[in-house]
Amino acid sequence: MSTKTTTSATTTTTTSDYHHQPDVSQFMMGPRPAETKDYIMQQTMLRVKDPLQSLQFYCDILGFTLVMYSEFPQWGFNVYFVAPVPSDVEIPQGDTEQDKAQRWQYCMNLPGCIELTYNYGTAQEEGQVYNTGNADTTGTTNGEKVRGGFGHIGITVPDVYQACERFQSLGVEFHKSPNSGGMKGLAFIKDPDGYLVEVLPQGPMITKPIDCAGVEAAAAGEGYQDNSK
Amino acid sequence: MSTKTTTSATTTTTTSDYHHQPDVSQFMMGPRPAETKDYIMQQTMLRVKDPLQSLQFYCDILGFTLVMYSEFPQWGFNVYFVAPVPSDVEIPQGDTEQDKAQRWQYCMNLPGCIELTYNYGTAQEEGQVYNTGNADTTGTTNGEKVRGGFGHIGITVPDVYQACERFQSLGVEFHKSPNSGGMKGLAFIKDPDGYLVEVLPQGPMITKPIDCAGVEAAAAGEGYQDNSK
Repeated sequence: MSTKTTTSATTTTTTSDYHHQPDVSQFMMGPRPAETKDYIMQQTMLRVKDPLQSLQFYCDILGFTLVMYSEFPQWGFNVYFVAPVPSDVEIPQGDTEQDKAQRWQYCMNLPGCIELTYNYGTAQEEGQVYNTGNADTTGTTNGEKVRGGFGHIGITVPDVYQACERFQSLGVEFHKSPNSGGMKGLAFIKDPDGYLVEVLPQGPMITKPIDCAGVEAAAAGEGYQDNSK
Repeated sequence: MSTKTTTSATTTTTTSDYHHQPDVSQFMMGPRPAETKDYIMQQTMLRVKDPLQSLQFYCDILGFTLVMYSEFPQWGFNVYFVAPVPSDVEIPQGDTEQDKAQRWQYCMNLPGCIELTYNYGTAQEEGQVYNTGNADTTGTTNGEKVRGGFGHIGITVPDVYQACERFQSLGVEFHKSPNSGGMKGLAFIKDPDGYLVEVLPQGPMITKPIDCAGVEAAAAGEGYQDNSK
């Protein structure tokens, strides 16, 4: 029995020139379908080579909390849900059925969790294990760059420059410090698997004269480049 | 001038056997670093072939709202931020600087947005354009499956079976209906680019006798398989 349908969910669009902005106002205004009103964008799942390395990064450096985890030895994997959690929230820590149910429910109602999936054995492999999506050659046998779909995750912070000073002091690897490149005031760091994490301001986009890498705001730099390929 | 550091952010872990659950209690309990207390997990960026097709899926089918978009013709791309937004929230629609600033600030403080990136020209390409992360051959020239890092995004809903009935009626493609496979009560659907979207319950994991594809809860099925490769 097949559970797949062959019908496409969307109708064909005949816009001939996507170089110009299509009219998207219908998606900004007006009510959404009533059936969807309580839907939550709860998770982004990323596979990680080594769960402890990843938890150190997400929890000790980005300040996320491990909300819930589950181990499935029968299937050879564990999952770890991490997200920023306000300090006044108390997630039950015990192993009673009630504690587990409360953790599940809290997690499933928390928008923006990262589900870190650990497939047993990858921690013992050499080097980077998973393709990170940005013209990455990892995960191929011929060393070819793959045109990736996933680009990055992104956090917002009160002060990008201050956050990046701290990341720098903790030895985090930067892909782009706030003043490098053509887009000033935002940064990209890397998690232990090489996934990009954008760092953006919660308020207006501002620049400061010098960033954590010593790059001046006035430094020349190129703008965006499609880095999928 | 390089903005990269070569220092790793994390210390080497000497756990020799990750087949067993490592002790992760330190990441669940206790305070996180004070500097990170206001951090928000704001976005997941996915490249899309055709922005209108994607907006129809995320807004008309999943019920997300287009919170903010920006076009960058000088760099050949547009971005569209979508997320579930409560119906009583009014996002300013105008083009004054104040409206734009308010949209930016609302978006940057909203956890769990999806940033859909459209690189000009892909809408005119044939077939699937981007590698979706799950042992996908797309984006390679030799047809080889890539060991992907990104797995899926996931939404939570009040009733998985009801949500899937509606998705089915709208012609959404299923990767796994709620009762198929070994994990009962959750589903995977596909967005227009083939990215997997998991559908999970906000309350306890329950099963119903028959799902939208006619599969019985009692049907046999395999459990989890590492689908990165």
